[in-house]
Amino acid sequence: MKQMQIFAFDMNCVGHINHGMWTHPRDTSLHYTDLDYWVDLARTAERGKLDGIFLADILGVYDVYKNSAAPVIQAAAQLPVNDPMVPIAAMAYVTRHLGFGVTVNTTFEPPYLLARLMSTLDHLTKGRIGWNIVTGYLDSAARAMGLEKLPEHDARYDAAEEYLEILYKLWEGSWDDDAFVGDKVRAIFADPAKVRAMKHEGQYYKIEGFHLSQPSPQRTPLLFQAGASARGQDFAARHAECVFVAAPTPQAVCRPVEALRAKAEAFGRGPDALRVLQLVTIVVGRTEKEARDKLQDYRTHANVEASLAHYAASTGVDLSKYGLDDPITQASTNANQSALAAITKDAPTPMTLRRIIDHMVLGSRMKPIVGSPAQVADRLAEWIADGGIDGFNLARTVAPESLLDFVDLVIPELQERGLFKADYAQGALRQKLFGKSGRLPPGHPAAAFRH
Amino acid sequence: MKQMQIFAFDMNCVGHINHGMWTHPRDTSLHYTDLDYWVDLARTAERGKLDGIFLADILGVYDVYKNSAAPVIQAAAQLPVNDPMVPIAAMAYVTRHLGFGVTVNTTFEPPYLLARLMSTLDHLTKGRIGWNIVTGYLDSAARAMGLEKLPEHDARYDAAEEYLEILYKLWEGSWDDDAFVGDKVRAIFADPAKVRAMKHEGQYYKIEGFHLSQPSPQRTPLLFQAGASARGQDFAARHAECVFVAAPTPQAVCRPVEALRAKAEAFGRGPDALRVLQLVTIVVGRTEKEARDKLQDYRTHANVEASLAHYAASTGVDLSKYGLDDPITQASTNANQSALAAITKDAPTPMTLRRIIDHMVLGSRMKPIVGSPAQVADRLAEWIADGGIDGFNLARTVAPESLLDFVDLVIPELQERGLFKADYAQGALRQKLFGKSGRLPPGHPAAAFRH
Repeated sequence: MKQMQIFAFDMNCVGHINHGMWTHPRDTSLHYTDLDYWVDLARTAERGKLDGIFLADILGVYDVYKNSAAPVIQAAAQLPVNDPMVPIAAMAYVTRHLGFGVTVNTTFEPPYLLARLMSTLDHLTKGRIGWNIVTGYLDSAARAMGLEKLPEHDARYDAAEEYLEILYKLWEGSWDDDAFVGDKVRAIFADPAKVRAMKHEGQYYKIEGFHLSQPSPQRTPLLFQAGASARGQDFAARHAECVFVAAPTPQAVCRPVEALRAKAEAFGRGPDALRVLQLVTIVVGRTEKEARDKLQDYRTHANVEASLAHYAASTGVDLSKYGLDDPITQASTNANQSALAAITKDAPTPMTLRRIIDHMVLGSRMKPIVGSPAQVADRLAEWIADGGIDGFNLARTVAPESLLDFVDLVIPELQERGLFKADYAQGALRQKLFGKSGRLPPGHPAAAFRH
Repeated sequence: MKQMQIFAFDMNCVGHINHGMWTHPRDTSLHYTDLDYWVDLARTAERGKLDGIFLADILGVYDVYKNSAAPVIQAAAQLPVNDPMVPIAAMAYVTRHLGFGVTVNTTFEPPYLLARLMSTLDHLTKGRIGWNIVTGYLDSAARAMGLEKLPEHDARYDAAEEYLEILYKLWEGSWDDDAFVGDKVRAIFADPAKVRAMKHEGQYYKIEGFHLSQPSPQRTPLLFQAGASARGQDFAARHAECVFVAAPTPQAVCRPVEALRAKAEAFGRGPDALRVLQLVTIVVGRTEKEARDKLQDYRTHANVEASLAHYAASTGVDLSKYGLDDPITQASTNANQSALAAITKDAPTPMTLRRIIDHMVLGSRMKPIVGSPAQVADRLAEWIADGGIDGFNLARTVAPESLLDFVDLVIPELQERGLFKADYAQGALRQKLFGKSGRLPPGHPAAAFRH
């Protein structure tokens, strides 16, 4: 039976996706500035045999709603947001198998520095690092990084293609597999004939240099991507190994996922090149009643305004300008088409603020899966079967309670049904997920840059 | 009696300063890619009550010597060099008081990203982070970062001044001290009236944005600097709190240090604004004979060629072009004047390759302090008294043996003499070193950017 992959989804901040949950008396996310908070999270995730912890990131602030950052500052909606890289070493130190995914933005992070950062993480975690490739979408981030505004969407992806080529040349091509010698007697650390400077001269970058890190277990970190646009899908099919989706139903995601897999195969990457992970919020109790009571308790803490501010930044539509029952249409906004389509598609028309708010049960646009362990397992199994996906990215609600509940109640149920592994596989993160090598397979574009 | 400050000096690499030591049978620095290596180092340093571990960094490679990177690749002379930030969380997790200094280059790292990175480190270490401000000197780094060549020396410092202003605005001015509320009942994380976007429009940078991190214990990390040029000295007197020096004798450092302190005072920073740390290599044994035997053993592993390659990159002089007894003069080179002066000043003239090599006892240009614990303590006390400095930065030889020896043999001797603290002081790193607050004092230029 096919086993699902499960990542805990988090962010180095107080309010991540389900806004307002930090105000629950049992929530501890105000302690995100303590190493113990992260270490405990990692230990819980590994106890549950989760494939990894995925840390999102954003540069810039959500200031579209009311044309102000005040709502998100008051609600801690992804502001403050600390650097996701920093806690990883401590989490890796107390675990052995757990993977770590982390978001880094190609528009803002210099590629030569990112190449070394990722190699260092891959070394120190013994091959347990993944990178979620994003290109950014907030003009506030562009201004903070010294640009007038963001480059256009497709130009960002063109630059990201070049960026990846640079990284592949550094990660896969600068040091040969047998460059490291480590011979103390002959005083030879590495063979200089097997280490070379890479050169890149493209439209966006002109770069020349040795990769500063010797080969790490995976070389190229496990590559994550979540692009929803046509250009983003193309990019994912070409480069990504794990793809995040956030569809309203299994039925809605099935065909796009099939198309993505077909595109990856058309790019020569074989039929098993992708792991597709659906974003889910789960509220589980020992019984259905316990779960429903928990949901009722949690939802009294949901922060709708923060959720609207977050949504407004994603779509580019200042939702504060609409009355509760005003129709919100594509025409009435200058909205990001794909973002707005994601919610209008499966919603009653006309879309209104009231209907959006009704949807925001726990302070996000996600409809939670609620029930007993068996009920939750049924729903997850449905997603896998009907959606044609591979696994899940678990959004937190009340932290760390929601992860503890999942690990203690849902994981055993999934294991019993054979839907989730009883123990970790050996090897690097890529090897654990795909069952082959810790290195990228020959069909991946990175392989072309091996010497 | 004045107590000295002591940092362990290290780098996320195999060969740091005393080149070739990794080839010693007992040296473990090939394990720099294991978290345990760093965790053990941190535990040893904290057991010895050291003030901190300082991690150097370099982007680019030492390719002046023989116009090639081959010698340093073969000898692991600061290539490979991994990211210094990554292991810090694991080291902080297993310690409570130990400080961490880390080098980051203002020419290459975007200021908005560095601001958040440092704040995150300051949060997760509970105020134990320091930053060594460097502006770079290798053209190979510039090319790797997409520039044709490095900006000129003084322009780099001008840009660094602006860079610091941006950071001060973010660290000290974007969030007020009482901005954080953390009230779960009223659902107020922070007061938006007390959080503001900074704006900067200068010659080198145009930046606008909220600091992404809420105030950390120190806000601005402890500031280290090591500039030897006139411009570098000026910069250090204005901004630095800890200054690294690498003088040949206490007598040689005394007057420059006095001048630096006077300059800091003239900038309104008071008479106690600086901690000056001399770079030292120490070989200690239980007896003088044991130390001398150890030195003899170590020096059979010294790698002179790697040391010459390192020195050639620092001075810009390809020393491979000189015969052993050819005179090396300022005129015969296009050398970096201050770097060459540092060695020619106290050396017999004419300087020759043979004399430089004679000087490189343990694979570096540093003359080691060798002796029994009492002899080493005498020498360190002399440095403090005659050099007018505050403490030391300990270069490693055979790792971790040289740090273990220092902690087990020299520290107790210094403590017995009242020259080193018996235990850590409370508070953040800055508070421990200066005995006042964890925040920068009012006379520091950063204070002007507080709201």
